[in-house]
Amino acid sequence: MAKQLNVGIIGYGFMGRTHSNAYRNVHSFFSDVPYEPVLKTICGLEEKEAKAFAERWGFKSHTTDWHKVMDDKSIDIVDICVPNNYHAEIAIAAAKAGKMIICEKPLARTGKEAEPMVQAVEKAGVANLVSFNYRRVPAITLAKKLIDEGRLGRIFHYRANFLQDWTISTKVPQGGMATWRLDVKAAGSGVTGDLLAHCIDTAMWQNGPIASVCAMTETFVKERMNVDTGKVEPVGIDDACTFFCRFKNGSLGNFESTRYARGHKALFTFEINGEHASIGWDLHDLHRLSYFDHRDDSQVRGWRSIHVTDGDMPYMGHWWVPGLQIGYGETFVHQLADFLDGVAKDKPASPTFREALATQYVCDAVLVSAKNGKWENVKA
Amino acid sequence: MAKQLNVGIIGYGFMGRTHSNAYRNVHSFFSDVPYEPVLKTICGLEEKEAKAFAERWGFKSHTTDWHKVMDDKSIDIVDICVPNNYHAEIAIAAAKAGKMIICEKPLARTGKEAEPMVQAVEKAGVANLVSFNYRRVPAITLAKKLIDEGRLGRIFHYRANFLQDWTISTKVPQGGMATWRLDVKAAGSGVTGDLLAHCIDTAMWQNGPIASVCAMTETFVKERMNVDTGKVEPVGIDDACTFFCRFKNGSLGNFESTRYARGHKALFTFEINGEHASIGWDLHDLHRLSYFDHRDDSQVRGWRSIHVTDGDMPYMGHWWVPGLQIGYGETFVHQLADFLDGVAKDKPASPTFREALATQYVCDAVLVSAKNGKWENVKA
Amino acid sequence: MAKQLNVGIIGYGFMGRTHSNAYRNVHSFFSDVPYEPVLKTICGLEEKEAKAFAERWGFKSHTTDWHKVMDDKSIDIVDICVPNNYHAEIAIAAAKAGKMIICEKPLARTGKEAEPMVQAVEKAGVANLVSFNYRRVPAITLAKKLIDEGRLGRIFHYRANFLQDWTISTKVPQGGMATWRLDVKAAGSGVTGDLLAHCIDTAMWQNGPIASVCAMTETFVKERMNVDTGKVEPVGIDDACTFFCRFKNGSLGNFESTRYARGHKALFTFEINGEHASIGWDLHDLHRLSYFDHRDDSQVRGWRSIHVTDGDMPYMGHWWVPGLQIGYGETFVHQLADFLDGVAKDKPASPTFREALATQYVCDAVLVSAKNGKWENVKA
Amino acid sequence: MAKQLNVGIIGYGFMGRTHSNAYRNVHSFFSDVPYEPVLKTICGLEEKEAKAFAERWGFKSHTTDWHKVMDDKSIDIVDICVPNNYHAEIAIAAAKAGKMIICEKPLARTGKEAEPMVQAVEKAGVANLVSFNYRRVPAITLAKKLIDEGRLGRIFHYRANFLQDWTISTKVPQGGMATWRLDVKAAGSGVTGDLLAHCIDTAMWQNGPIASVCAMTETFVKERMNVDTGKVEPVGIDDACTFFCRFKNGSLGNFESTRYARGHKALFTFEINGEHASIGWDLHDLHRLSYFDHRDDSQVRGWRSIHVTDGDMPYMGHWWVPGLQIGYGETFVHQLADFLDGVAKDKPASPTFREALATQYVCDAVLVSAKNGKWENVKA
Repeated sequence: MAKQLNVGIIGYGFMGRTHSNAYRNVHSFFSDVPYEPVLKTICGLEEKEAKAFAERWGFKSHTTDWHKVMDDKSIDIVDICVPNNYHAEIAIAAAKAGKMIICEKPLARTGKEAEPMVQAVEKAGVANLVSFNYRRVPAITLAKKLIDEGRLGRIFHYRANFLQDWTISTKVPQGGMATWRLDVKAAGSGVTGDLLAHCIDTAMWQNGPIASVCAMTETFVKERMNVDTGKVEPVGIDDACTFFCRFKNGSLGNFESTRYARGHKALFTFEINGEHASIGWDLHDLHRLSYFDHRDDSQVRGWRSIHVTDGDMPYMGHWWVPGLQIGYGETFVHQLADFLDGVAKDKPASPTFREALATQYVCDAVLVSAKNGKWENVKA
Repeated sequence: MAKQLNVGIIGYGFMGRTHSNAYRNVHSFFSDVPYEPVLKTICGLEEKEAKAFAERWGFKSHTTDWHKVMDDKSIDIVDICVPNNYHAEIAIAAAKAGKMIICEKPLARTGKEAEPMVQAVEKAGVANLVSFNYRRVPAITLAKKLIDEGRLGRIFHYRANFLQDWTISTKVPQGGMATWRLDVKAAGSGVTGDLLAHCIDTAMWQNGPIASVCAMTETFVKERMNVDTGKVEPVGIDDACTFFCRFKNGSLGNFESTRYARGHKALFTFEINGEHASIGWDLHDLHRLSYFDHRDDSQVRGWRSIHVTDGDMPYMGHWWVPGLQIGYGETFVHQLADFLDGVAKDKPASPTFREALATQYVCDAVLVSAKNGKWENVKA
Repeated sequence: MAKQLNVGIIGYGFMGRTHSNAYRNVHSFFSDVPYEPVLKTICGLEEKEAKAFAERWGFKSHTTDWHKVMDDKSIDIVDICVPNNYHAEIAIAAAKAGKMIICEKPLARTGKEAEPMVQAVEKAGVANLVSFNYRRVPAITLAKKLIDEGRLGRIFHYRANFLQDWTISTKVPQGGMATWRLDVKAAGSGVTGDLLAHCIDTAMWQNGPIASVCAMTETFVKERMNVDTGKVEPVGIDDACTFFCRFKNGSLGNFESTRYARGHKALFTFEINGEHASIGWDLHDLHRLSYFDHRDDSQVRGWRSIHVTDGDMPYMGHWWVPGLQIGYGETFVHQLADFLDGVAKDKPASPTFREALATQYVCDAVLVSAKNGKWENVKA
Repeated sequence: MAKQLNVGIIGYGFMGRTHSNAYRNVHSFFSDVPYEPVLKTICGLEEKEAKAFAERWGFKSHTTDWHKVMDDKSIDIVDICVPNNYHAEIAIAAAKAGKMIICEKPLARTGKEAEPMVQAVEKAGVANLVSFNYRRVPAITLAKKLIDEGRLGRIFHYRANFLQDWTISTKVPQGGMATWRLDVKAAGSGVTGDLLAHCIDTAMWQNGPIASVCAMTETFVKERMNVDTGKVEPVGIDDACTFFCRFKNGSLGNFESTRYARGHKALFTFEINGEHASIGWDLHDLHRLSYFDHRDDSQVRGWRSIHVTDGDMPYMGHWWVPGLQIGYGETFVHQLADFLDGVAKDKPASPTFREALATQYVCDAVLVSAKNGKWENVKA
């Protein structure tokens, strides 16, 4: 029988939902993992909302004070799903309370803000993970495996985009529950921390550290109504960010993110070009991996569209049958299964707070470079 | 607060899993539906397996005798996920016991076997549904909506395929838990009842009744080991079936299914061509709908790839955010939400046993036509 | 130096243009072929049109009387690009005059009409070819090569469609220069002879003879204005035709053609499924071949999109550089190069009149089956 | 009747072939243009090769001395298809001789080298064109039209790539006829002048001037055998170049080119994102244009794949019938038709030498920026 672990989630927004779903279902699909999470407490700003969320998802209790979650000795895991500006304070408190911690990405608003978080979890010796969930899309996990097997040979290029179009209208506000990602105080940055952080985490996981970057940012809409203050205020975030970079392994990177690419909702794509083979992927069809191998017989050489659903594909043996897809929500189930498995085996799942700090440093360098208009080395 | 309904599931195979998952999660995502299912009992052949399944999915009890499920007065819904040859007996018993019934497709092995099932549920007055889950793929639901709005004009053609490749090896056996679909005694037919039934149900839902059919079937592998008997026995099912037909509305149909189409795992596709517009879909990328409208300005006229993930798309407002997909499993959640909503509003969700009987009649006509080599009218 | 061959083309319509273009350019791209065609005479119905066509394409002369082409002893090749009802008479006369003959497909309106054509060319001993140009799309030629190499193993299925949408409007007339394909007297049949003939020729080239067929046809628009008579007359052609069949090698075929598939202009597709591998193709992206090989390492197994432009691909070494496509017109250049090469080497290019007669017999059987509503054996 | 114009082509390499093909065929397809080119003289390095080329393409004469082409008073058009380092000298001589001039791109190795060329043609008052042939891909011409109609609204982003993989092997030499593009003396630069020049020309044609750039280049293979000298020599060109930029209209650009992107032969792609609509294109399927319009009814909103083959599409009325593609070679026919039409109407076709100089200035700025590691303004 799996051992039960009590979970307290801070934040009942979009991420609160994806994480709750993962805790509810991980045991049914990954029953070999020796822990079964129990949704103990949901914590959120509004009493009424928190109560409804608890009823909907099966939490045993709810609260509007996150300190109570820390004080609850029965709680084993604290899961942080609040805006970025609250990550550090809550995570450090949770570490001090000896809780295991899963924290939504990005780890914090800046590297400087994140460093004490890393120190806190390492000092406390608690299991910790930052929720870069895309690593657990089966196609991306497969890509990592193919790269690690050396199939690509020497790497020349890494290219990634994360394109959205939801803030084109000047009527979209900043601040508040739904649009805190547009408020620099809450988010720390715009597309850099929200979207490029995903691209960077995936890229460095697959292709190693980024040494230096050169970036350009733009804020197309200069002022927006702030929901929290009720006033039209300057927009402090980057609406769009493009950067190129050099990886430590000598390959070149090209990254772009924007929320002004009409027609794209969440077009996270990457492509990696090696001496022998290349790999491509696209979040809009997340179960497919593109693969080209130059060593194929030239008469039948071409980009392969791998429909990553067979039972021997990463994670897929836990779901349905070949040909049948899973969705976005399932990536959080995988992440949680890996986290719990890591706890069981005392082999921490990646990325830990420390590993995620590297992504934070790249984001920092990107924003500095964009400001200064020149190359910036990434803090090691 | 949602009222709780106790559920007994018969069968812990692939479909037992998809249905269990739906019951576990429907309330979290469709909390506006005024019922919350509770997994009361799982029933299956092997005690050990049933117990493990109960633990994994959170059933309160398990049994190996399906009659006990009927006798349990606390059970509100009986859900039938066993091989086709057991559908009729169990469904009729459940109807007599006054249970609501969800039955996996096809309703039975033949129309003749299905007819008393229809009579039983109608006599008992119990809510009933056949699990043609693909109707609840958001893209297919959207297609139905677009057709019903009259956007296509007069319909000329309907085309559907369901292609797989998992039985090409002669070493795949028949019978047993994993391969009962290859045993004609359990399944009734091969691809006709298993795969074409889905195509036919979707087609008639979208395009109205099929009047007459002309079919060809083939059994490529003539003998297979039977897991149940341990002997090599003749294969009684159709490995492949192709038919063309005439719909009552004057349009022509072309349907094909096989388990010998190398490279396709579950390639359920359909296309419908109307006077003004056409629609296409493909299960391997189930969240996309193809749409062509001849009335578009000719300079920008082309097939549109609709990424069916926005909040105003069928069912999608209940899941994540635009651009993020759901998977196969979620279609059963939608189906269950609709079923429960139908119960609440006393407007039965489709297809009921009676509606599904029409698909059974088409399958019957297809198999007769293939045998006789001539057109066959479909029983009305 | 290449030897010059004088060419007389009968017909200055769409096919007259594609053939003229081939003659003009074959030597520049296939200079290893030891013949260089010279455009000697264009023959067509209207003096003024013929003259303009001659000027435009560089013909030395023009005429409105095709017999003059036969009488011109300097002419080596007669090329027949007129409606189907004139093929037999002209081809037989050309054979008697000792000309080499290229005839547009289909060979004739019926097998009965085509038989004396075959006899005439064989008696005369003249080189002859029917213009099933799609065999010379590099991707299709490659497909044939892969099949002949045995890469697919035992064949289970062959599937082909040819979908158009240009006759949906009831205002499209029949008869005349532009729409003789809708007039049964000129065309012999509708989509069967015009479009399915291509599918059938390709299919039998790749997969061997078709033994028997079972078909359905429909004429959606029953009456159309006849340009030749000025009257509204019954439509005698098939607007749509679907058939399934059995190949001699035991595989199953499924073919469909229509001019009522909104959104498709010339969607000629085929797919062939073998034990080990499958191949697919689509005229709308004619330079790509899809290939799936089950023997690939399962971690990187998927449909390959082969961009057939490299120099080692069929015909492509004669054109540009890798990555750069050719179009539809170039297929006629290939066909002509093969024809001339066959003449030089005394190894006739395919399909000869005799080979094309087999396609005619399949078309005949399809139309008979559609009329009788039962299976029909194909004349051997 | 069309007036004949005599043509002298300098260079019988890849571009000599594409241009010869255009001159041979333009009148057959664009007979409304009042000029019919005559292939008078081909000029190239090797006597034997030049003679064979003349025979193959129908030139009346050949020479190995380009000055003779200038001296031939019968020649109306000089067409320059030699390596970049010869463009200036030949073009200036041709201008002085009063010839019309078509010059392959890039105009020269640098802006400084190109400036006197512009002055020469303007002083001489001769028609002049730089062969940025991709502008005449029908899908790209259509894109320009849609943008000019204002369909996209305010532009936010422009993104273009040109990816190849043909120089990954260290055994590929530099210099000589086949690989002069790798020799900095002949080419001036690597992918910047060869490939990005196309992207930049298209981008500025569609989206207006580029104001400033920031670039990174890399030479992955540092030494290659030089065919001309027989020695292993340092490689002076850029193997890869990435840059981002700001357009004068406030939109952001992101450009990348490389010859080390395994799996891509000539993957020229662009995407432009506007407030209301976006457009995308890809050379590997050059007859398709992607278009997304946010103003579409949300239920049927999606990326449209426009198959640019209908008769009302740019240039396509001159070719075949809807659904049937043209290839790469045809873009040079279009370019020539436009050039001749411009001569007839005294409205010069674009891009003239002066217009192409702007692209040269962007390339210059890109290379300077890459060297200096900071933003560079583009010469206006």
